[in-house]
Amino acid sequence: MKTYQVVGIGNAMVDVLWECPDEFLTENGVEKGIMQLTDRDRGVELYGKIGPAKEISGGSAANTIAGIAHLGGQTAYVGKVKDDQLGAIFSHDLRAQGADYDTPLAPKTHEAETGRCIVLVTPDGERSMNTYLGVTEFLGPEDIFEDQMAQADWIYLEGYRFDGPASVAAFDKAIAACTGAGGRVSLTLSDPFCVDRHRGAFRSLIQDHVDLLFCNRAEMLSMYETEDFDAALAQAASEVEIVACTDSGNGAHILSHGQRWHAPAMPVQIVDATGAGDLFAGGFLWGLTNGYNLETCGRMGCVGASEVISHIGARPEADLKVLFQTQGLL
Amino acid sequence: MKTYQVVGIGNAMVDVLWECPDEFLTENGVEKGIMQLTDRDRGVELYGKIGPAKEISGGSAANTIAGIAHLGGQTAYVGKVKDDQLGAIFSHDLRAQGADYDTPLAPKTHEAETGRCIVLVTPDGERSMNTYLGVTEFLGPEDIFEDQMAQADWIYLEGYRFDGPASVAAFDKAIAACTGAGGRVSLTLSDPFCVDRHRGAFRSLIQDHVDLLFCNRAEMLSMYETEDFDAALAQAASEVEIVACTDSGNGAHILSHGQRWHAPAMPVQIVDATGAGDLFAGGFLWGLTNGYNLETCGRMGCVGASEVISHIGARPEADLKVLFQTQGLL
Repeated sequence: MKTYQVVGIGNAMVDVLWECPDEFLTENGVEKGIMQLTDRDRGVELYGKIGPAKEISGGSAANTIAGIAHLGGQTAYVGKVKDDQLGAIFSHDLRAQGADYDTPLAPKTHEAETGRCIVLVTPDGERSMNTYLGVTEFLGPEDIFEDQMAQADWIYLEGYRFDGPASVAAFDKAIAACTGAGGRVSLTLSDPFCVDRHRGAFRSLIQDHVDLLFCNRAEMLSMYETEDFDAALAQAASEVEIVACTDSGNGAHILSHGQRWHAPAMPVQIVDATGAGDLFAGGFLWGLTNGYNLETCGRMGCVGASEVISHIGARPEADLKVLFQTQGLL
Repeated sequence: MKTYQVVGIGNAMVDVLWECPDEFLTENGVEKGIMQLTDRDRGVELYGKIGPAKEISGGSAANTIAGIAHLGGQTAYVGKVKDDQLGAIFSHDLRAQGADYDTPLAPKTHEAETGRCIVLVTPDGERSMNTYLGVTEFLGPEDIFEDQMAQADWIYLEGYRFDGPASVAAFDKAIAACTGAGGRVSLTLSDPFCVDRHRGAFRSLIQDHVDLLFCNRAEMLSMYETEDFDAALAQAASEVEIVACTDSGNGAHILSHGQRWHAPAMPVQIVDATGAGDLFAGGFLWGLTNGYNLETCGRMGCVGASEVISHIGARPEADLKVLFQTQGLL
């Protein structure tokens, strides 16, 4: 038995959450519902305009790993923060959730800071993200420990990492170490515009290495440059063993070995959509690495997503295992 | 007309909030329901034991000033943070709420950091606070701008500040500048054990300078070292012009010039009691400086308290003016 069910690699972030009116987005040139990268100056400018905020640890893959740890899974995270206060917050919150986290800190002398994401939550619960990557941009192969990757049943790669210069080399090292020891590779496409920025790299990774692909409808359509959702799903399913594609209020579609299942979305009041896809992946991967069938994994993912969108912040608060039991999934 | 309705002076803090079981308090020697000071080592030790947390700006008087600013009041705050990430968060949140905040930052080279308070919220909604003062301990007379104090109808002094070495001199300077220009002085007793640590200093301040005294039942009893609540209220009312004393679920008692009023508590599910007294004072002072009678001020205070205890964090989230209107107070 390996040490870890899942090891995630992603952009380490502290979220700065503010509930705002829709007009704020238009007045400040923020595109709704997606992740946009900002340089430090734009981040500072935007921060100067938002109201009083809450700081809660985030980062897409880190949220997924936090969800798996919350469920009692053996899991670890790789992502770079600095030796600063936000870095200490991020590190604490992940470890306190029960995940291993040993990525070397960027030193105090590094000119960039720990990454943060200004998350603007509109009254409909949609989140619009403005990301200053900071030191997380500089995660490189030297931060990937081959021993750890070899000890993972699955690695979970965050698509957002393609925005970092050394990401491909880091992913390659992680994949080689993991698969060389019999482990498997999952990937999340992260964001439709991130897919657009890096379609070729994503496509190669999917075709060459990915066993399990996470995405949502918009990312799937962007990936295969089509408006035909079913065709895109079929194409993806021909390239990877398992496709798990969320579809907002329509739940999630799971495809594998010629079969297809649908997991319904849970009825819930959307307070803050931040982390929905992340906790879908968390619930799914926990189920998969605990031997549940794919349909049940999809339903566990939908429960994870429903919990995290029912409150501000992208980390689980209610007991997901209790929710799984309530839904008859355990 | 002066520039400010209220200028508050207090300990500048970022709260680190974690919802925890009662056993955590007993297992870690945390006394329930009060504020306890910790040194940095104890703060780090405790932080290492708590679960994933949320960071939200706090500080008692800062919460009060944030409430007044939220209501549209002209207000400013004095309290010390460092030129670090938590200091930037604190400063942003207060200014974004609409308060002026111009206290010089402690420089990056200062050995202490921006203060933070680990707030442990138990299932009953009670909060137990563990405060590392950091640089806020070093607020001194040099941080008090006499021009600003002279421009205040009221200054609002936080009792917790008595735990700082230069606090008495700072308060003296603020009081002289404010009252010299015709302004008036309010004080909150902050915490029963804080009263116990500094009873003599509090007593002198009350008798010599305070026009409006905020406290809760436990602080009132501690101040006058009695178990007879009505006797303590009467004693206080003989020493200051206005007494506004909260009494948890029993609402608040207002005494002035031989009269006494009762403001009922609002029925609300207590999620997190942090900031209840602070937002009581915020609502009360906003009402007072907008010409409302004392009974209405008391009721506004109770509405402010009820809003802030209905969610995690000590700053207002719902629109207090709308709540005042719903209660027929405007």
